[in-house]
Amino acid sequence: MNFKDRDILTTVDLTREEILKIMQVSADMEAIVRKERVSSLMSDKVIAIIFLEPSTRTRLSFETAVYRLGASPIIVSDAKSSSASKGEDLADTARTIAGYVDCIVVRQPAIGGAGVMADAVDVPVINGGDGAGQHPTQALLDLYTIQKEKGTLEGLKVAMVGDLKYGRTVHSLSYALAPFNPEYIYCAPEALRMPEHIVSKMEEKKVPVIQTDKIEEALDADIVYMTRIQRERFDDTAEYEKLKGSYILTRSLVEQGNPDVSILHPLPRVDEIARDVDNLPNAAYFRQAHNGVYLRMALLALVTGAVS
Amino acid sequence: MNFKDRDILTTVDLTREEILKIMQVSADMEAIVRKERVSSLMSDKVIAIIFLEPSTRTRLSFETAVYRLGASPIIVSDAKSSSASKGEDLADTARTIAGYVDCIVVRQPAIGGAGVMADAVDVPVINGGDGAGQHPTQALLDLYTIQKEKGTLEGLKVAMVGDLKYGRTVHSLSYALAPFNPEYIYCAPEALRMPEHIVSKMEEKKVPVIQTDKIEEALDADIVYMTRIQRERFDDTAEYEKLKGSYILTRSLVEQGNPDVSILHPLPRVDEIARDVDNLPNAAYFRQAHNGVYLRMALLALVTGAVS
Amino acid sequence: MNFKDRDILTTVDLTREEILKIMQVSADMEAIVRKERVSSLMSDKVIAIIFLEPSTRTRLSFETAVYRLGASPIIVSDAKSSSASKGEDLADTARTIAGYVDCIVVRQPAIGGAGVMADAVDVPVINGGDGAGQHPTQALLDLYTIQKEKGTLEGLKVAMVGDLKYGRTVHSLSYALAPFNPEYIYCAPEALRMPEHIVSKMEEKKVPVIQTDKIEEALDADIVYMTRIQRERFDDTAEYEKLKGSYILTRSLVEQGNPDVSILHPLPRVDEIARDVDNLPNAAYFRQAHNGVYLRMALLALVTGAVS
Repeated sequence: MNFKDRDILTTVDLTREEILKIMQVSADMEAIVRKERVSSLMSDKVIAIIFLEPSTRTRLSFETAVYRLGASPIIVSDAKSSSASKGEDLADTARTIAGYVDCIVVRQPAIGGAGVMADAVDVPVINGGDGAGQHPTQALLDLYTIQKEKGTLEGLKVAMVGDLKYGRTVHSLSYALAPFNPEYIYCAPEALRMPEHIVSKMEEKKVPVIQTDKIEEALDADIVYMTRIQRERFDDTAEYEKLKGSYILTRSLVEQGNPDVSILHPLPRVDEIARDVDNLPNAAYFRQAHNGVYLRMALLALVTGAVS
Repeated sequence: MNFKDRDILTTVDLTREEILKIMQVSADMEAIVRKERVSSLMSDKVIAIIFLEPSTRTRLSFETAVYRLGASPIIVSDAKSSSASKGEDLADTARTIAGYVDCIVVRQPAIGGAGVMADAVDVPVINGGDGAGQHPTQALLDLYTIQKEKGTLEGLKVAMVGDLKYGRTVHSLSYALAPFNPEYIYCAPEALRMPEHIVSKMEEKKVPVIQTDKIEEALDADIVYMTRIQRERFDDTAEYEKLKGSYILTRSLVEQGNPDVSILHPLPRVDEIARDVDNLPNAAYFRQAHNGVYLRMALLALVTGAVS
Repeated sequence: MNFKDRDILTTVDLTREEILKIMQVSADMEAIVRKERVSSLMSDKVIAIIFLEPSTRTRLSFETAVYRLGASPIIVSDAKSSSASKGEDLADTARTIAGYVDCIVVRQPAIGGAGVMADAVDVPVINGGDGAGQHPTQALLDLYTIQKEKGTLEGLKVAMVGDLKYGRTVHSLSYALAPFNPEYIYCAPEALRMPEHIVSKMEEKKVPVIQTDKIEEALDADIVYMTRIQRERFDDTAEYEKLKGSYILTRSLVEQGNPDVSILHPLPRVDEIARDVDNLPNAAYFRQAHNGVYLRMALLALVTGAVS
């Protein structure tokens, strides 16, 4: 198993052993940060962070990872200031930047765009989100968080709540955790149910799936993964307001459920988790965000060969 | 007196001794920069610089301070590219970023916004300007400049000229210098006079205050602190043009006043200081801007515990 | 010959010996990057990179150069977030930033703007492009590329193709290469011919010049320098479409010409070089982009005195 020079475009093709390796290196990175704060593991590396769509959280997390590895980032954080505005295509952009840096991290809106860039260059490319496509570093940091919160990835009951139709993170999580013998509870309003092709795929993988539209039925899980229900998915604002209210995780709901439940959320949250949940030990969503730094350090170090 | 882990949200609550300590550490930082250019005092630190309002000068000055301390900055320089555009609140933004970094510097438009962020997190927060509220690093660099130019903060006659109503810097300076036995000359057009609550507060603190609308009466001070009169404060453009002309500091005005006067300005200037003043030794405003780096280094080093 | 503290505003005033020196230091920098990836030559320096116009390629290339020299960049990548939006002039911006950093790199739209900034400050200023004016680092990286591809700058036949009227890079290249006994083929449609003042100047310098509107006549050169023909130069879109098609370099055209031709392009390309040319050994344009890092490292190191 060798990650050097590999592109990280999706989690779909990662084996169980590869995922566990990434978890181990993430834990090593966390230990380094807790001890040294900034290491010199990659002090000879320059990393391109090309964000042609806004995403403060993911971008800053990657930048922090770069700095805590002792590397240096060159950054595009705005589509308008880029050569894209002069009509350049992704492959040419990649070919140019590949000569500057040791690795390219890219977020852009076209499904498959990160793959186009990866095909054009020799340096490794990490997909930081390609529109409605993949967001592998989010899925992997979700796994790393689950492992830290529960002590294992094995045999967990995981509820996913909210917008399961458009919520990219719950699709990726379903796939990424499938090799570890989970049970899934998919909890969504009718209009935002998990797409049938994913449900079938899980059945094919022998993952037990329960579907429900009642948040109460999600709360005895080991993990409750909340997502935002976005206004722009609805033609009818009244319908949105009604549905949204039914998928808000309140403190009293948490207190009715599994006392050891860990609550995750990809953030940013709007109001789907009540503020008074934040201080419960079950609230893992800010820890989850922080884990993104260690996971991204692990991937950067693995694909550039700084660790193996 | 311990600054480690303290938030710097305002100068109003700083004691005379605390201000003098900050002045001393700023001088230490200036000595380090003059000798080594870049130190390794904070080479294990990552600092978040979150600017949700444009401010090149303050932002670049903080970034320079971070680099000259050997630290690394993660930067948001644009409200539009941030999670704020997805509806996230300041407290959640702070809680997420706090897990990445060792200190947060923030400029944003809501009065009290930096305090909201400081309340949400354990890492220290430095207010880089909260709209019409506070801008403590500007006030402190003004003090550091005054001390360098005059050799002391004690017993100085300080004239403030221009827009004293909306000019945040002259409000903060009035408070920050008050413990050092100053006299103030407030020189402004009728419509832009210093707010009454500040004048009363100074009288309460036994600071002698003279109010005038004639710039000639400001020029025998030790310090003349100029500010911009902004067009957008006036409904009537003709009124603006007339007033503006009365508060322009020209070379001949400077030559009529105290030959040792030091002229300050928070910059950017438009035309309230004539260009031919720039080469006079009295013109301290570019030195003042440069002092911002040393003062901000001092605050970053103090609150992160890199110096004590 | 001493470059320390010199501004790099244009290539017009560089002597043959100065150009050769820059070529030599660029090669030294390339050797350092190939061996160490990141050096510590300028680890005590902070560099301002002020881009008031979008230009990802040039900006990221400068930033990479800064990092690979071990220095730190403070960056403005967006005119809107700058003090310029508060009405500050370039000289004041320069005077402020000069107190933060060891060198200023600036791209802005006004012809001569970089010179205005250079006149205002003591730190060296490098012009990263001043609108329709000069772009000296592009011209010098073109020379460095030519020298690497051909082994010499001496006595080459150089064809420039496309928009020679508005194409700033071909103007600068004409001047920069003139001391090295070249021949030029200027190949452009009637409406976009090389300006007469440049043609006369070349004749004055005894450079043989051939003008043509047929791309076939350009292909026996040692170097073919392609440029974009921009839609916005034409009132008549049909005229644009017709002309554009006549200045596309295809693989079959390349195969009819000098088998050792090196093809350059300042990038970004739209479609004036067919994609199937990219894999020919003659296609030097991505190598050319990558050379920008070494050339810019050389200039930064020379003007700050890090090398001499």
